[in-house]
Amino acid sequence: MADAGGQARIGLIGLGTMGAALASNIAEKGFDIAVFNRTTQVTRDFAAGAGDLGTKITPTESLEELVAAIATPRAIILMVPAGQAVDDQIYALRPLLDAEDLIIDCGNALFSDTDRRVHDNRGPFLGVGVSGGEEGARHGPSIMGGGAQEHWDRVADIMTAISAKHEDDPCAALMGPGGAGHFVKMVHNGIEYADMQMIAEVYGILRDGHGMAPEAIGDVFAAWDAGPLQSYLIEISGKVAKAQDVATGEPLLSVIVDAAGQKGTGRWTAIESQHRLAPVPAIEAAVVARNLSARREERTEGERIFGPAPQALDGLSHDTLERALIAGKVICYAQGFEMLSAAMRDFGWDLPMARIAQIWRQGCIIRSSMLDDMSSALADAPGTNLMFTDHFAAIMRDNHQALREVVAQAALNGHPLPALSSGLAYFDAMRTARGTANMVQGQRDFFGLHGFEHVNGKTGQHGPWAG
Amino acid sequence: MADAGGQARIGLIGLGTMGAALASNIAEKGFDIAVFNRTTQVTRDFAAGAGDLGTKITPTESLEELVAAIATPRAIILMVPAGQAVDDQIYALRPLLDAEDLIIDCGNALFSDTDRRVHDNRGPFLGVGVSGGEEGARHGPSIMGGGAQEHWDRVADIMTAISAKHEDDPCAALMGPGGAGHFVKMVHNGIEYADMQMIAEVYGILRDGHGMAPEAIGDVFAAWDAGPLQSYLIEISGKVAKAQDVATGEPLLSVIVDAAGQKGTGRWTAIESQHRLAPVPAIEAAVVARNLSARREERTEGERIFGPAPQALDGLSHDTLERALIAGKVICYAQGFEMLSAAMRDFGWDLPMARIAQIWRQGCIIRSSMLDDMSSALADAPGTNLMFTDHFAAIMRDNHQALREVVAQAALNGHPLPALSSGLAYFDAMRTARGTANMVQGQRDFFGLHGFEHVNGKTGQHGPWAG
Repeated sequence: MADAGGQARIGLIGLGTMGAALASNIAEKGFDIAVFNRTTQVTRDFAAGAGDLGTKITPTESLEELVAAIATPRAIILMVPAGQAVDDQIYALRPLLDAEDLIIDCGNALFSDTDRRVHDNRGPFLGVGVSGGEEGARHGPSIMGGGAQEHWDRVADIMTAISAKHEDDPCAALMGPGGAGHFVKMVHNGIEYADMQMIAEVYGILRDGHGMAPEAIGDVFAAWDAGPLQSYLIEISGKVAKAQDVATGEPLLSVIVDAAGQKGTGRWTAIESQHRLAPVPAIEAAVVARNLSARREERTEGERIFGPAPQALDGLSHDTLERALIAGKVICYAQGFEMLSAAMRDFGWDLPMARIAQIWRQGCIIRSSMLDDMSSALADAPGTNLMFTDHFAAIMRDNHQALREVVAQAALNGHPLPALSSGLAYFDAMRTARGTANMVQGQRDFFGLHGFEHVNGKTGQHGPWAG
Repeated sequence: MADAGGQARIGLIGLGTMGAALASNIAEKGFDIAVFNRTTQVTRDFAAGAGDLGTKITPTESLEELVAAIATPRAIILMVPAGQAVDDQIYALRPLLDAEDLIIDCGNALFSDTDRRVHDNRGPFLGVGVSGGEEGARHGPSIMGGGAQEHWDRVADIMTAISAKHEDDPCAALMGPGGAGHFVKMVHNGIEYADMQMIAEVYGILRDGHGMAPEAIGDVFAAWDAGPLQSYLIEISGKVAKAQDVATGEPLLSVIVDAAGQKGTGRWTAIESQHRLAPVPAIEAAVVARNLSARREERTEGERIFGPAPQALDGLSHDTLERALIAGKVICYAQGFEMLSAAMRDFGWDLPMARIAQIWRQGCIIRSSMLDDMSSALADAPGTNLMFTDHFAAIMRDNHQALREVVAQAALNGHPLPALSSGLAYFDAMRTARGTANMVQGQRDFFGLHGFEHVNGKTGQHGPWAG
């Protein structure tokens, strides 16, 4: 049990890149904040560099000092590496706290870990997904909360104040109980993987199919950023394409090795989608593409054996490529929202779907002008696949032909389009009332007597081989 | 501690479909076997129906009686539902056994559960994957053992005797320690999912693209079964296509609802592949396809909104489709073997890759004439992607153009080919020395300062925004 608290409105543990940015953001919005870092020098450097914000910041050099500096009932943000470090920190902190003190994990936790921590009854706990990188954390992230409403309410004013704003609407909300906030953040990152991969695939067609230089490719993306594709990822793709390498003056894209890293949230999304029986093939394809990108020696060996895959191609105009990306982008989001629907069904959550589209409109990596219409569509037709809502069905009608042409030309000319082609297959499967799984089920009955549903409605039927 | 044992060479618990078939197989090969089932009547019925094999079978009505009937040191096969039931059975059985008595789980366990059970030090334990369904279990399955060599050696004669034979070569082997046997079995099932899905995709082109009746489609598969695609799955696809519904006399494929079930091993493979960073996109696509097949109402709604997807198409000859499937099949197996390689790396196993191809040649669902050449290729070039081995590189050279044409025509005409198109993207990605992940990594550096590897070899480099 701690002594009566101090004056800081909130505390924060972990002054790494994200923690420092978030603490500065909180201070800037007028909240007194006490901060602590395991390495004391980091805390001292942060306080010394805080400038005008320094009056709002109380640096502390022990957990006890941190706890004593915060007004009761306390709220303390953890911004430490996801995983065991969070449990270790909770374990160290709880004995110093009062029963009603609130711990808030703003790191990138796996949602099931958050769920466990919310429900372990050691004390009030929120798991909050924060998207937007360092820049977002410093000046306005998208914030997805998970836990009890009463706990969220205690810090809602801070979360609202520090969040990004879309016009005047804050991009912060409670998603639901337990791990709901980190689940929504995870799916956000999955959509981000798929969207990035589709952009990279179209980049490949411009580079290898059309033989365009990075600068010119940057112009294409910049033009698209003024149209229906307007989004942060399209914007920065244009900037990346136009950037020059500091060391050599070469186009930046020419000097970046074609190996994409990952911190695991895309993989988590892919794994969790399988547990939820919620198909997100474009996200899976994007994760696979990152894994394959790391296999440079094997790919080089493959090129030696078969010759280079991507060939020059004609007939895909910039307009066709833009339309294909529009269709692909709708498909990415549709899969993500379908996965959220599956979580609602499986976990009994009441995720605010339309609101989720709203809080993704600013601050986060997948912010996009399409999200306004997605919010309306999800509000008007809850539970409907995004592709099937009036607005986006019209978009798909206008653009799926372009996606077909791009996938077909890429297939014929050796351009790997794992995300775009899987997206097209998803769209076509979802508009085929009579698919081909009757063959699969017939095979299963043949070799394993698994039975099938008859079109007459009877289940557990068998072919003539059954006895 | 049990009394001195009886005369049975081995025991078996669980006389369901698979357990009864395996027990009969063991008895038929001349081994005395004691059997037990939780429901005594099942045991009595099994013994009563055993006919000539009855002299080899000792029915028992309690675990104590079972244990007493088996010669020491004992070996007891469990054939109970995977999961908690296995742990429950072990828990009930161990106190009745001597320290050196061996428990053998021949069910469909998740490999990590088997790993735990092998290593929990309660006593000797093997986890054995058995493939081939009831027919295989009764007359010769493919058998993939996991555990200690000394424990395998104690029952190797039985496993060898009951297994399928390819010419004279038994399809049974120890894969490695711990969960290795069930891991290999899991990957086998993943390949099975992908192969079945690719066949279903080509079936869809024949049905919806060419307008062929099931009987005629059956003729196509039967013809293919006499060529390079010769395999159990192609054979039974032909039989399924030619079969008639017992109730209506209609073609069987016309009355089977297009919803494919799953028992989870494909999903396990997809999940585990993500943990291993081992891309198996064709398997993931197959699992997604089964999940989407269950969404019949949504697919019907999609067809109402957009019109039916698959259109009649010209220009894909049966030869082209056959060649596309040949390329697809090589890709399925390549992904599966690559996943086994990843497990060797991550778990320190020394999986007998060439031998695995051999024991899959008979008894199991993915048995195929291609496996002979796969075994040779994997023996000649260990650690090489199957697509890159001399023999299969030649096959890919001969057939990838057909796969391109099929994927392109399907894309243009609305046929969803998730597995075949993802397979093509995998092949093309693996033969592209310079891919497009430089764009992804550039984006990641822009928004998250994740850094990139420079083509000059320096790592942790940044774009000009890193200021």
